[in-house]
Amino acid sequence: MTETTTWTRHHVLSLADFSPREYDTVLQTAASFREVLSRRTKKVPALQGQVVANLFFEPSTRTRSSFELAAKRLSSDTLNFAPGTSSLTKGETILDTAKTYWAMGANIMVIRHRQSGVPGAIAQAMDHLQAGVKVLNAGDGLHEHPSQALLDLFTLCSLIDFEAPRLHCLAGKKIAIVGDILHSRVARSNIWSLSAAGADVHLAAPPTLLPSLFAEMGQVTLHWELAPALQGADFIMALRLQKERMTQNLLPSLREYHQQFGITRDRLQLCHPDVKILHPGPVNRGVELSSDLMDDPRLSLINQQVTSGVAIRMALLYLLAFPTGSPVL
Amino acid sequence: MTETTTWTRHHVLSLADFSPREYDTVLQTAASFREVLSRRTKKVPALQGQVVANLFFEPSTRTRSSFELAAKRLSSDTLNFAPGTSSLTKGETILDTAKTYWAMGANIMVIRHRQSGVPGAIAQAMDHLQAGVKVLNAGDGLHEHPSQALLDLFTLCSLIDFEAPRLHCLAGKKIAIVGDILHSRVARSNIWSLSAAGADVHLAAPPTLLPSLFAEMGQVTLHWELAPALQGADFIMALRLQKERMTQNLLPSLREYHQQFGITRDRLQLCHPDVKILHPGPVNRGVELSSDLMDDPRLSLINQQVTSGVAIRMALLYLLAFPTGSPVL
Amino acid sequence: MTETTTWTRHHVLSLADFSPREYDTVLQTAASFREVLSRRTKKVPALQGQVVANLFFEPSTRTRSSFELAAKRLSSDTLNFAPGTSSLTKGETILDTAKTYWAMGANIMVIRHRQSGVPGAIAQAMDHLQAGVKVLNAGDGLHEHPSQALLDLFTLCSLIDFEAPRLHCLAGKKIAIVGDILHSRVARSNIWSLSAAGADVHLAAPPTLLPSLFAEMGQVTLHWELAPALQGADFIMALRLQKERMTQNLLPSLREYHQQFGITRDRLQLCHPDVKILHPGPVNRGVELSSDLMDDPRLSLINQQVTSGVAIRMALLYLLAFPTGSPVL
Repeated sequence: MTETTTWTRHHVLSLADFSPREYDTVLQTAASFREVLSRRTKKVPALQGQVVANLFFEPSTRTRSSFELAAKRLSSDTLNFAPGTSSLTKGETILDTAKTYWAMGANIMVIRHRQSGVPGAIAQAMDHLQAGVKVLNAGDGLHEHPSQALLDLFTLCSLIDFEAPRLHCLAGKKIAIVGDILHSRVARSNIWSLSAAGADVHLAAPPTLLPSLFAEMGQVTLHWELAPALQGADFIMALRLQKERMTQNLLPSLREYHQQFGITRDRLQLCHPDVKILHPGPVNRGVELSSDLMDDPRLSLINQQVTSGVAIRMALLYLLAFPTGSPVL
Repeated sequence: MTETTTWTRHHVLSLADFSPREYDTVLQTAASFREVLSRRTKKVPALQGQVVANLFFEPSTRTRSSFELAAKRLSSDTLNFAPGTSSLTKGETILDTAKTYWAMGANIMVIRHRQSGVPGAIAQAMDHLQAGVKVLNAGDGLHEHPSQALLDLFTLCSLIDFEAPRLHCLAGKKIAIVGDILHSRVARSNIWSLSAAGADVHLAAPPTLLPSLFAEMGQVTLHWELAPALQGADFIMALRLQKERMTQNLLPSLREYHQQFGITRDRLQLCHPDVKILHPGPVNRGVELSSDLMDDPRLSLINQQVTSGVAIRMALLYLLAFPTGSPVL
Repeated sequence: MTETTTWTRHHVLSLADFSPREYDTVLQTAASFREVLSRRTKKVPALQGQVVANLFFEPSTRTRSSFELAAKRLSSDTLNFAPGTSSLTKGETILDTAKTYWAMGANIMVIRHRQSGVPGAIAQAMDHLQAGVKVLNAGDGLHEHPSQALLDLFTLCSLIDFEAPRLHCLAGKKIAIVGDILHSRVARSNIWSLSAAGADVHLAAPPTLLPSLFAEMGQVTLHWELAPALQGADFIMALRLQKERMTQNLLPSLREYHQQFGITRDRLQLCHPDVKILHPGPVNRGVELSSDLMDDPRLSLINQQVTSGVAIRMALLYLLAFPTGSPVL
């Protein structure tokens, strides 16, 4: 790793104001860690003696495990907060919980909460206390999920330039984001990053799941049917459909959703011949994607996304811990 | 450690096809790790940078803790999957969960599931993907629990030859397996290993818990009463009785079970004078065993079994990670 | 660290019989670890290869995390027992669970249980087995919570003499313990330590939460109203109020409790001008303390208590592991 000296951000809460240079620093750092992960001993001592607290107020398997593994591979100590058995049931506020982990010695807090803005509020409180604690948003309500969008970006850019994945790799690429965009923090973060990359972003969903206000988020094109979004697409990003949406009368049935917006082999005929499919997981097989597409390694990038996740999260933890770079790698 | 070069197995799913040479390699490797565990610093760097994922879809304390400690003492990083807070509740398939952990970087998966065959199905999927992931069955339904039978074997053989525990140590020894054999994956795995050792295996249980088809598993003798199984026995292996069996009308009452099949000091008169008792735990005191026998260190091998478990699991993880041996120890 | 050679205690279960020399050894050792925690790499290899088992039969976030972090910073391996998914639901006794962790290789057991005396019973069983296992009481029923009282002591003494915190620092200081004393193991442990220090201890609570038998615990003064306890106080220790107490008819309402016994800025006029406030957390804001006091760094020692907790728990784990001192630090 040669130069990561441009990093000045204390917290990663949103991609709305990420600069191209920041995107590139993250991508470049993640590429360095991908090289580490290809070694026999996939560990570096960079964060030894530092404490990463995973405060997942909303349950999670894959994101929590990914951050935990990233933290362990940087040799940090990790603390996991389990909401079920916690003081929250005793009436403590979320901010008091965060302050407790700070006082215990946490250096970085990775926070997921079902309410938008909680990681931001904790970051603000930590700054106000001059605590020196760094906050990473691991998904907050319907707001953002920055590390997911960054791992998507890393996956896509690496496909185009494995050695030097950079934001500009995606300029002009047509990317269709399909599914429950209204309720997706993944979609929101991806719209920021893909717009910043100069990609041609198309959103497709039933009108109940894609209000027209999304047009205001940037240079995106909205579709209330699937075909025009797929037409010539280089990449399709399918979003997870929460089954709860049906009971909320936002969807008639999963079967009908699949008939109108499910990604199937037939519909790929519309896309660029080398089209690839992403999904943040976990997938409802036969709803968002037909099962055979998910398992086709020529089409699905889902496993690469998971692998990218560890490298991206190592990069984010590392950059927050060592904003001006470090000789450790 | 001099020679462990005979190991070629990629997964440990069942003992049905274990060769005598494989048993001896496991016993020999576990004996080496027992020596490590007697040192002041009970750790070796063998699996540093590797990831052991404990995927316990069925809850467990002792087996999970034992595998976790074994993995930590080999210096690997561990990831624990908690079914309660997992994506399984979000409708993801078990195979997709396993693929996610593979893509994250897991090298070895330790899998428990209440359905028989799940670890095998995951192993097959991993091989099909050429993932290089090794799978260890930590108990699947009524099928097998190989690491438990191997730790039982290690405990028994070590009693006979502590320095060089080998499979043939048990040739001709009479071993009575007593209890709910029908529902016991522990019994099934032990029948394979003890038969391979040339032990004289006797099974004893009420007819509802010991169907005659068990006679087909190998050279075992079935008894629907306790006395002939205990007659001259060198070892008694009591099995845990699930209290649910009573509501299923397979058992009249725990008291009646204890009267007919409970191991008591009186009944030990029938056995070899040096008889020892094993139990995979957790014990229902006063049901499978009278409480005083369990606490008598001259009779009970229960604590030795737990201790053996860590050495055996270190051996299994090590052999899967380094099939052709390694200079690390 | 020069001399810690006076430590002979095998378990820390209660402060009732702690000697002044023991208090000072703990304080001195914790001060050494505070120095370690101020370094860039906040880790020492002291307990490498040793196993600390956190057996929290009663759920806990802050105490468990604090012990876990202390153990990790001493480089030990940690095992966490999760009551929800445990063999306890399978009918195993608590002592059998503890024996299993011993047989697995646990060197130190940190135990919390809602029943008084459980850690003591486990310690006794371990001694009887000559297991060499050390037991740390992390809170048992209404009995004691020694590490909490020791971290309170360390916080207070460090305020008076940061470099050399010693028991005698608190001689003659007036300390008011306010709240649900009847149900507080924190209060019980603090009464022992503060009395040993020669502090002037005053207890204040409604009569239902402060039976007169507390007068027998040592040189303490009881008050059924707040004002005389606060009069000239150097320190106020507010206790957590369990909301369940109201349904038990021990309290009229939280609002009435706050009116009579809540610590507010007005009431601090009664105290010494430099008065400081402690609370073991989690705080019910607006009940035990008014919210603004809790967030005022000139008044509240709550964050220092949490920070002290890690140093005190490192000290306790270290002293139990190396009773006659060690050259490791």
